[in-house]
Amino acid sequence: MKWIDGGVCAAEGFQANGIHVGVKSRNAEKKDVALIAAQVPCSAAAVYTKNAVKAAHILIDREHLKNGQARAVVINSGNANACAANGEANALRVCQSVAAQLGCSPEDVLIASTGVIGQELPASVIETGVPALAAGLSHTASGSDAAANAIMTTDTVKKELALETVIGGKTVHLGGIAKGSGMIHPNMGTMLCFLTTDCAISAAMLREALLETVTVSFNRISVDGDTSTNDTCCILANGMAGNACITEKNGDYTAFAEALKALSVRLARAMAADGEGAKHLITCIVSGAKSVESAETLGKSVISSTLTKAAIFGADANWGRVLCAMGYSGESFDPDGVDIAFASAAGSIPVCEKGRGLVFDEELAKRILTEPEVEIRISLSEGSAECTCWGCDITYEYIRINGDYRT
Amino acid sequence: MKWIDGGVCAAEGFQANGIHVGVKSRNAEKKDVALIAAQVPCSAAAVYTKNAVKAAHILIDREHLKNGQARAVVINSGNANACAANGEANALRVCQSVAAQLGCSPEDVLIASTGVIGQELPASVIETGVPALAAGLSHTASGSDAAANAIMTTDTVKKELALETVIGGKTVHLGGIAKGSGMIHPNMGTMLCFLTTDCAISAAMLREALLETVTVSFNRISVDGDTSTNDTCCILANGMAGNACITEKNGDYTAFAEALKALSVRLARAMAADGEGAKHLITCIVSGAKSVESAETLGKSVISSTLTKAAIFGADANWGRVLCAMGYSGESFDPDGVDIAFASAAGSIPVCEKGRGLVFDEELAKRILTEPEVEIRISLSEGSAECTCWGCDITYEYIRINGDYRT
Repeated sequence: MKWIDGGVCAAEGFQANGIHVGVKSRNAEKKDVALIAAQVPCSAAAVYTKNAVKAAHILIDREHLKNGQARAVVINSGNANACAANGEANALRVCQSVAAQLGCSPEDVLIASTGVIGQELPASVIETGVPALAAGLSHTASGSDAAANAIMTTDTVKKELALETVIGGKTVHLGGIAKGSGMIHPNMGTMLCFLTTDCAISAAMLREALLETVTVSFNRISVDGDTSTNDTCCILANGMAGNACITEKNGDYTAFAEALKALSVRLARAMAADGEGAKHLITCIVSGAKSVESAETLGKSVISSTLTKAAIFGADANWGRVLCAMGYSGESFDPDGVDIAFASAAGSIPVCEKGRGLVFDEELAKRILTEPEVEIRISLSEGSAECTCWGCDITYEYIRINGDYRT
Repeated sequence: MKWIDGGVCAAEGFQANGIHVGVKSRNAEKKDVALIAAQVPCSAAAVYTKNAVKAAHILIDREHLKNGQARAVVINSGNANACAANGEANALRVCQSVAAQLGCSPEDVLIASTGVIGQELPASVIETGVPALAAGLSHTASGSDAAANAIMTTDTVKKELALETVIGGKTVHLGGIAKGSGMIHPNMGTMLCFLTTDCAISAAMLREALLETVTVSFNRISVDGDTSTNDTCCILANGMAGNACITEKNGDYTAFAEALKALSVRLARAMAADGEGAKHLITCIVSGAKSVESAETLGKSVISSTLTKAAIFGADANWGRVLCAMGYSGESFDPDGVDIAFASAAGSIPVCEKGRGLVFDEELAKRILTEPEVEIRISLSEGSAECTCWGCDITYEYIRINGDYRT
């Protein structure tokens, strides 16, 4: 497995583009619509938010994915198209205009949105921009770059990755772009993530691999505990790598799923690290748990704790807040069997053993927690299961961004 | 029912005091130990945090409350005595020293703590201060005032209330002091609340009334979603009002429970309004729900949403975040049947009808949300149940306070 450039255009037979069409009226510089298109029909799968309030595009996509096939994904980053008038009709209009440009059926076009909730999607504005968007499609890295930029909102860093691996004797590519930042506490998919691959794989196996992957990547991050109405993670597989098509859970499936997980975990980490206003990526590793689910519940409670996030912002080794967050997670465990340590590039320091505080070097702890990437290592005495979750600190900047997001 | 002065000393036969004994070494001005004492044995009841990680005082109190009786409560506000060495032994030592001064059994003394988690309770420091603490006990309003000040940590406002009502033909008094501020998302009791009454009521009925009360008051507030290890709400009833002792759920019980709820709801609101760094008290009223539980789940999700809290901080009428928080609450409801309005002393404004955004006067909305107390009114189309919850906004100040709490 090798990390490469090219994002969603790294796989054979995929093109992408992103331009400003005016969904966001405020900033004419900001690209706001992206398109990812495949030269041939693809196996496709997607997972969506479990929020009971769902964006309209999710209903459209579910229809369009009934046959497990798709050709393109169109995304706007200015309007959530959630709780808005004519949501489904507007989403469908955009799919139709993209299909007309690509010469495929509207049912082969998926759509996703992110932005303000409750305002009508300016479908006609997007329609006006679609011809230029399609005309500029490129299968070079610059196409993926444009698309990755076009889906950003308050993100400060573009999330774009690709890798190459060998499956069934053929070189296979996998790439993705994502956006995160705020309203990130995914429950099923995450804010927005689009993956492409030239691997030959059936729609059923692709869906299976995507579900496995989302569980251990995007569903294990949190920025602010707010599960969005728009979370979407979708993948297109066009089969152009020429490997024997994966139609069952064989060794090739495992190799593909491992590659997909590696890619998605990196994208998820990048999302957590670039949480709105964040200064620290927090990795929480829970080991010695009675099950992976138990470790995950405890770890997610820790990375979601506002007080723990504030402590990390202040580089304060306040491990009591970590144990406290574990305690209210709803998971049962023996507090007297808990060890906690903080670690980073600057070293590691045990701060709690068997549920009791240790005397530790406060200066070293401060240095460790001042690093941009910090780990909270929690060891239980319940069993041997382990889980890693990712979050970020909460900062003045988060408040500033979200005190004035809509206006 | 009439609001009166005097806090926990408003009821006949109760004394209180609060002094600096040095549990908090940093600030010699800050009172840090409080004592509430009754002249005669009291019926007593308490509820505690449901956090799996519990402060040591909770285990001691449960023992001491087995007979449903108590005479005094001693509280320190510098050390949580949670996850700390010798937690139970130290708590017991403090009870013993108080009992020696008051001439009662150590089993009649309850204890509570709040402060940093994981450091050993300086029991000997507290023991040294107990004689002066007991000697200064007063049944005037100044005694309650000293105790209310001594239990404060990052609170900016003292929480102290009392009321007078008639039960069984006798004038009965009920008073309380509380602390809130951070790590407030009570699940059973709240951070710390101590209530006294001269009403004659059995321990069993007192417990029943306390449970009913906590459910509709302290359990309906949130500051930061972090359920503390130390939440404690306890009540002492000395019977000195001379009413016929309440031993069953009769009319007198109802009158007592109503008075207790009125007092507790005001204390809970005060805690939410004085949440760490808060500039706004947020009252969320959910009506038209299928059950009170459903309304409560939805309302608590809204007041706990970091993004909603940040929007109120910015006086931004971002109702999409309210609907989004309802959507991820886990409660089922029809999003297309939801109306939302914002209200305050400056007026009220509907912003969402049947799940869709309304065109509204942004200037008026801003004026409404700039008031210190704002309401989020949510109306569902599921039934006729209703619930009110209280929270606060999240501010730069919250981050500042919690980025550097321990050191």
